[in-house]
Amino acid sequence: MDESHLDKLHEECAIVGIYGHPEAGNLAYLGLYALQHRGQEASGIVSTDGKTFHQEKGTGLVADIFSEDRLKRLKGSAAIGHNRYSTTGESLLDNVQPILVNYALGTLSMVHNGNLINANFLRDELEAYGAIFQSTMDSEVIIHLIAHSRQRRLVDRITETLGRVRGAYSLIFLSEEGMVGVRDPYGVRPLALGRMKDGYVLASETCAFDLIEAEYIRDVEPGEIIQINGHGISSFKPFAPVPNAHCVFEYVYFSRPDSRVFDRGVYEIRKRLGKELAAESHMDADIVVPVPDSGVPAALGYSEASRIHFDAGLIRNHYVGRTFIEPQQSIRHFGVKIKLNAVQEILEGKRVVVVDDSLVRGTTSRKIVKMIRAAGAKEIHMRISSPPIVSPCFYGIDTPTRQELVASSHDLEEIRKYITADSLSYLSMEGMFRAVYHSESGENKHFCTACFTENYPIPFTGEELIQLGLFEKEEGG
Amino acid sequence: MDESHLDKLHEECAIVGIYGHPEAGNLAYLGLYALQHRGQEASGIVSTDGKTFHQEKGTGLVADIFSEDRLKRLKGSAAIGHNRYSTTGESLLDNVQPILVNYALGTLSMVHNGNLINANFLRDELEAYGAIFQSTMDSEVIIHLIAHSRQRRLVDRITETLGRVRGAYSLIFLSEEGMVGVRDPYGVRPLALGRMKDGYVLASETCAFDLIEAEYIRDVEPGEIIQINGHGISSFKPFAPVPNAHCVFEYVYFSRPDSRVFDRGVYEIRKRLGKELAAESHMDADIVVPVPDSGVPAALGYSEASRIHFDAGLIRNHYVGRTFIEPQQSIRHFGVKIKLNAVQEILEGKRVVVVDDSLVRGTTSRKIVKMIRAAGAKEIHMRISSPPIVSPCFYGIDTPTRQELVASSHDLEEIRKYITADSLSYLSMEGMFRAVYHSESGENKHFCTACFTENYPIPFTGEELIQLGLFEKEEGG
Amino acid sequence: MDESHLDKLHEECAIVGIYGHPEAGNLAYLGLYALQHRGQEASGIVSTDGKTFHQEKGTGLVADIFSEDRLKRLKGSAAIGHNRYSTTGESLLDNVQPILVNYALGTLSMVHNGNLINANFLRDELEAYGAIFQSTMDSEVIIHLIAHSRQRRLVDRITETLGRVRGAYSLIFLSEEGMVGVRDPYGVRPLALGRMKDGYVLASETCAFDLIEAEYIRDVEPGEIIQINGHGISSFKPFAPVPNAHCVFEYVYFSRPDSRVFDRGVYEIRKRLGKELAAESHMDADIVVPVPDSGVPAALGYSEASRIHFDAGLIRNHYVGRTFIEPQQSIRHFGVKIKLNAVQEILEGKRVVVVDDSLVRGTTSRKIVKMIRAAGAKEIHMRISSPPIVSPCFYGIDTPTRQELVASSHDLEEIRKYITADSLSYLSMEGMFRAVYHSESGENKHFCTACFTENYPIPFTGEELIQLGLFEKEEGG
Amino acid sequence: MDESHLDKLHEECAIVGIYGHPEAGNLAYLGLYALQHRGQEASGIVSTDGKTFHQEKGTGLVADIFSEDRLKRLKGSAAIGHNRYSTTGESLLDNVQPILVNYALGTLSMVHNGNLINANFLRDELEAYGAIFQSTMDSEVIIHLIAHSRQRRLVDRITETLGRVRGAYSLIFLSEEGMVGVRDPYGVRPLALGRMKDGYVLASETCAFDLIEAEYIRDVEPGEIIQINGHGISSFKPFAPVPNAHCVFEYVYFSRPDSRVFDRGVYEIRKRLGKELAAESHMDADIVVPVPDSGVPAALGYSEASRIHFDAGLIRNHYVGRTFIEPQQSIRHFGVKIKLNAVQEILEGKRVVVVDDSLVRGTTSRKIVKMIRAAGAKEIHMRISSPPIVSPCFYGIDTPTRQELVASSHDLEEIRKYITADSLSYLSMEGMFRAVYHSESGENKHFCTACFTENYPIPFTGEELIQLGLFEKEEGG
Repeated sequence: MDESHLDKLHEECAIVGIYGHPEAGNLAYLGLYALQHRGQEASGIVSTDGKTFHQEKGTGLVADIFSEDRLKRLKGSAAIGHNRYSTTGESLLDNVQPILVNYALGTLSMVHNGNLINANFLRDELEAYGAIFQSTMDSEVIIHLIAHSRQRRLVDRITETLGRVRGAYSLIFLSEEGMVGVRDPYGVRPLALGRMKDGYVLASETCAFDLIEAEYIRDVEPGEIIQINGHGISSFKPFAPVPNAHCVFEYVYFSRPDSRVFDRGVYEIRKRLGKELAAESHMDADIVVPVPDSGVPAALGYSEASRIHFDAGLIRNHYVGRTFIEPQQSIRHFGVKIKLNAVQEILEGKRVVVVDDSLVRGTTSRKIVKMIRAAGAKEIHMRISSPPIVSPCFYGIDTPTRQELVASSHDLEEIRKYITADSLSYLSMEGMFRAVYHSESGENKHFCTACFTENYPIPFTGEELIQLGLFEKEEGG
Repeated sequence: MDESHLDKLHEECAIVGIYGHPEAGNLAYLGLYALQHRGQEASGIVSTDGKTFHQEKGTGLVADIFSEDRLKRLKGSAAIGHNRYSTTGESLLDNVQPILVNYALGTLSMVHNGNLINANFLRDELEAYGAIFQSTMDSEVIIHLIAHSRQRRLVDRITETLGRVRGAYSLIFLSEEGMVGVRDPYGVRPLALGRMKDGYVLASETCAFDLIEAEYIRDVEPGEIIQINGHGISSFKPFAPVPNAHCVFEYVYFSRPDSRVFDRGVYEIRKRLGKELAAESHMDADIVVPVPDSGVPAALGYSEASRIHFDAGLIRNHYVGRTFIEPQQSIRHFGVKIKLNAVQEILEGKRVVVVDDSLVRGTTSRKIVKMIRAAGAKEIHMRISSPPIVSPCFYGIDTPTRQELVASSHDLEEIRKYITADSLSYLSMEGMFRAVYHSESGENKHFCTACFTENYPIPFTGEELIQLGLFEKEEGG
Repeated sequence: MDESHLDKLHEECAIVGIYGHPEAGNLAYLGLYALQHRGQEASGIVSTDGKTFHQEKGTGLVADIFSEDRLKRLKGSAAIGHNRYSTTGESLLDNVQPILVNYALGTLSMVHNGNLINANFLRDELEAYGAIFQSTMDSEVIIHLIAHSRQRRLVDRITETLGRVRGAYSLIFLSEEGMVGVRDPYGVRPLALGRMKDGYVLASETCAFDLIEAEYIRDVEPGEIIQINGHGISSFKPFAPVPNAHCVFEYVYFSRPDSRVFDRGVYEIRKRLGKELAAESHMDADIVVPVPDSGVPAALGYSEASRIHFDAGLIRNHYVGRTFIEPQQSIRHFGVKIKLNAVQEILEGKRVVVVDDSLVRGTTSRKIVKMIRAAGAKEIHMRISSPPIVSPCFYGIDTPTRQELVASSHDLEEIRKYITADSLSYLSMEGMFRAVYHSESGENKHFCTACFTENYPIPFTGEELIQLGLFEKEEGG
Repeated sequence: MDESHLDKLHEECAIVGIYGHPEAGNLAYLGLYALQHRGQEASGIVSTDGKTFHQEKGTGLVADIFSEDRLKRLKGSAAIGHNRYSTTGESLLDNVQPILVNYALGTLSMVHNGNLINANFLRDELEAYGAIFQSTMDSEVIIHLIAHSRQRRLVDRITETLGRVRGAYSLIFLSEEGMVGVRDPYGVRPLALGRMKDGYVLASETCAFDLIEAEYIRDVEPGEIIQINGHGISSFKPFAPVPNAHCVFEYVYFSRPDSRVFDRGVYEIRKRLGKELAAESHMDADIVVPVPDSGVPAALGYSEASRIHFDAGLIRNHYVGRTFIEPQQSIRHFGVKIKLNAVQEILEGKRVVVVDDSLVRGTTSRKIVKMIRAAGAKEIHMRISSPPIVSPCFYGIDTPTRQELVASSHDLEEIRKYITADSLSYLSMEGMFRAVYHSESGENKHFCTACFTENYPIPFTGEELIQLGLFEKEEGG
């Protein structure tokens, strides 16, 4: 699942919160570990016993950052944690969450999955009122708004603050009083609630519950504020309802297949994406080969629907380190070769359907096709179990610029030529939603499809359109 | 492929040699990286320009040990490298290969995959003649015998030395004059020869050739000594021929599926093992689920032969670190949970065939069965694509003691009960060799099956039998 | 000079600023290195080219923190740096300066030597207005006040801010516009201004100038704000003048002997402290022995005045690491022994005058006296080249609690008994000022002597008195 | 005492051995720490309980290498340790002592201070008999000869071996039977014997005894073999006596001033060297300034004898790291400046006598003279408390090549000009020995003076003369 070297969109973050367990820090660590696929650059945990707060953070993988000593220091029965996909800017560690501050009501810590679209505007305003910013994270704006609020209770300050920010956010707060979990009114990013024998857990995906043996209760609902403290759980829905806009790409690629996300099982949806793909673009062939690991469920679905044999024609090397030192006399398709190898005895002389979950720049697909062809395949038919990606995400996904998205400026045939496949098909929007809803209609009722359609569900102001490069685009288009 | 936390037999080592390439050190590094599955504890490389020798070694993963600086120091157009599965004894680094020494003929470096059975005897003798030993490796004996030889050429000293050692060994030597590759007369461990545009390569498996774009020529033959230097390649076969005894477990589990080993493709054999398994122990069921990653090809074969749907019901987490910190209040099946998670929506209510490549102690299988049952499976049928393991290997495989091998003292029904499965079947010896040879007969002509049969192909002396605990066993049996 | 294991008061910080030099980051590093004696726990540097800011910080010694890579990243022609004596609190790195923030006017970085006495009060007030605090440093208050100011120019905001804070502060700011240096109106902590061929430098002590070959111009004056930018230097004195209160302990112990501090040479003062000490408490003896390294100049002065031979009877080991592992069966006076050893051949049978610069808890002196006696000294006369320390410092010095200051509750004879010396004398206040001013009168005109006299030159509010534990004391006294 | 960056000769090693103490590993660590000035590049300790041997070694300072964990692993009541000044060759750690091997009699570990002059010859012979060498250390020859000996007892094998090696060696061996200490017949390098409440200790210098509270008994005598085991101490003197040739440079510079070496106190000798220097080359001046730290005792002696005031005009910075990053626009005398600073107020307008212990290349002296002159000194008179160094040491001291020894090819006036001093004087041979013996005669009865005189006390063979570049020299001279 560490596909960070491959040509993928990347989820920016994972968040987790534990309340009411004597080993909260350790469980937060296990939760982050189970959510490692949502961010591999940096991690942090803040824990508390309701009085003192402890913080440990670092760059690298969860299992490398948190030594036994560091975990021991994370005392207390409540803890929140964060994995980060990438850290930008000069001062790396300053941008690692949880944020932890002192303010008028005491101590406050916060983790954020998502992205605000009016952060710059709010930041300017807050600075005009005397706020100082110590990171380049949009998330810091939320903390400042809470600190500037005149409400007396934290939950009211959070409500007031969220009335001002726009964008995608799943948040977990930790204070002396307890833990608070929030999802934005559109419900763009996931956040699930679970129960342990002792206490409660919040996490981006349910695979974190499985590891720590928590039981999934339900999702935090869009626009819901859930407060967890010594008195149990209470729920608020202070915002006017808006149509749901869950990120459909969670199903396409981000989430772990063993997770339940937006209250649906990911694995089965992913397999149905493959079945729909087979139905839409069937092609006589000898074998179906997935691009591992993420292409496996769709390829299995494709195989079942098409009755073409599934075979593991590409083998994954899982020992890839951070920085791989390339020889001077460069090897063909080097970047892909350190991750994948083609099995010649499977591929030689075959007509091969290659199934991948998505196609972003096309650079990796091109290398994979060439590698399979070098292994002797007779025909190579690339099948993508999602529609073409044409526009960037502003809700917490690391997308390349529009220019780098090959489908934003090239038609199907041009892309096929570029990746040197014999044929290329994407899944249609209707096919995707047939798979997601497991129904015939193919209508989208609850999902954000901005990256496939440019229909951004959260309205932009004119200034934001210009800032994000969407306005000129509109003109140009 | 890092299955070191699971209940497996473990290959002790990988070896690689590069000759005649301006970036020999870097290619040796890539080769070791491709062979990481054969040893994750420590690695080392020695390179030379024919005059000066450079050495870099360390503990951990290949990609972590060799920084850009260290690779730059590995100058010269010839290099040999070694991955080690485990290091025992106090002084860790002293036991990391390559061995590098000065002796009467100049400088000599060596890597060894395998294990000698008369090392202790030879060691005592050498010490009596004044030799000093700086490691606990049996491999050091070979170097001493070469140094004590009176022959004038290195290759003659090697020949004389190998006439005295008994056991399994694939060796690569590096000296001022060139590179020498050797396999023991039985051909227990693999060693393949490849060609690059510039120079030659030797490696334990051909997957190393694929990464560095070398072309597979042939295996170094059992009992063959191959000398590679400025004059090209020359071959010697100084030993009387003996029946081949290739390690069949290379096909069962050790080798990467995309490798060619003993001149046969591993993936197809592994798939046929699954097909034979289905033929022998078919059982009506709803799905076939592999224990990832090593069980995948056999499970695919099983699924093809049985026409039961294959599904990825166990998801692997590939971010496992060295030392995982467990919470105090222990989680059920913790050791397996940090590696694997069961997908409830696939397994719930199903009759599940679980396919694994081998079963050693049974501890992990027991946890997996319980995890699958907790996910709601109705029936669980464990299928093992190799015969029961009843006795330890003395030829370079890390095997637990006979007492720990569950099949050495328990019958099928006892093991089934222990792992709590509804049924359990192993593949028969005949089935295994039908798959290996892709023929009907099921007769074993070239392979060592000691771990399944106690038939050790290399004769032991009486003293060795006692040392290895085999004699008492004989008596007892 | 790393006397952190010995029983000393400790300067909290060193600061340095470079403006107008193409290698500003590297010179800041050299400056911090020369000022390492003022803080060994952590260091940081922020540099800028007037647009982008770069930050590097870490824990440990300057020479260990700043690798070549990190120094290369500190681009730009202006830089400020900070050494810290100790970091308290959980999140170590958050408390390492320079502080670097974004606010309404752009970017601002700051380093602070000293301590504010009304920080808690201001912090509460700022939090009430919505400020968030990310560290436990009193220095963060200054940044917030600047951010909250409504003035349009940074220098006016600084002026407004400093009108609100009370305490000891030497500050250097770095912004897009340039560098600003400030000293509090009392001039408690030092700050010197120097000139290089290219640009200007500010530093706590002039020994930093010597290393980077800058020329000392003058001190930043008490209450002065010096602005350095592309137009050169400009000076402001916006505050009403108050009597000077320079920290006299800079002469006694903190500063390096080769520095010029408060426009006086430290070495000569320290030597005169020894001469005055000899004049006040002469005692027939055979040798004068310094406690190295800090006692050397005073011991030389004592020797010159008393005509008793100076000898290096205590040898210093300079290889002391951070954490020294003690054997279980503890060695007598272990803590001192890893730093100092007595030279028996010098001390045996002698009447020894031991000269140290100060005496805080008495624990180390007691061990030193016993060590010298064990080496065979006949008589041991301890001479301290400063008056008894009776009360804590609130202006930036790490002082133990009043209870730990042996002289706060014990008279001379009690202390002498405790340290087991044959006689003990401190220097008188008059003697100290005769040495400082090199004049007969012994009158104190410009120095803070709070630690010797409890006369705190900066007035406290009633609440502060209570907070600092001074009020009860007053009552008690 | 870390003067490794300055222009000095360097002692190659320190050795220590502990026998019969429950915390032997920890005491060996403390001993190495006290002997850190004799080698800062690498250290190692081997301990044993008489059965199992434990080894820990690394590069860097003692206090950094041995963590609490590593010390805990060094179990047993006997231990030996080694500090190394420099490691040459590719494989750094292979050259770090103790050597630890298995051989015919069991396990043997050894540490060596000194250098063998016939190592190459013996190495060739041993290799011809089949020995392999894993390091480039001459010390490895000793171990091989012991292993090849046919004697039945270790002590007899050692005796036989030492009959074959020529050169300087102080050795400590550790085996299952106990500890053995040896000094070569000339007694070139020191080795002292001490007693603790529990057990015995051997160390290069007595300062190691002081730290661990051992009592100095006597030196191991030249040519003596001391065996320490459960039966106590026994002594052998199997070699024909030869005239003593102690290294006089131990007094000049190598040893710590608080040590007793060759049964004489170092500090007092060093002070008398200064007195003799003053007597020989008095010069009217205002102050005597030592080059710290090693020049201090001689400068004190010079001051006493000349009645010119001693003053600490050069201040030492003790925080120097391994690799100091120099700015591009280089600072004058940079290398010296990071170590030393001149105190202007002491030096300005003065006639200064600068006392240093030795002068090797002259490069540092030149920088120091220029630095003192830049500080305003009127006259600078360099005084060296030892004779001119004209030839390299082959007995364990790191000497530059003859060409780099400024006194080997330049007369006094040329050197004076080069270092830009107003006058320069060395101490005479007679003066040196008057100081060493504290007698009038100045005759040398027991010391090696090869570096001052080219009279090498241990005879060379013709081949060795050629190898060491001494033969051609003879011809040329």
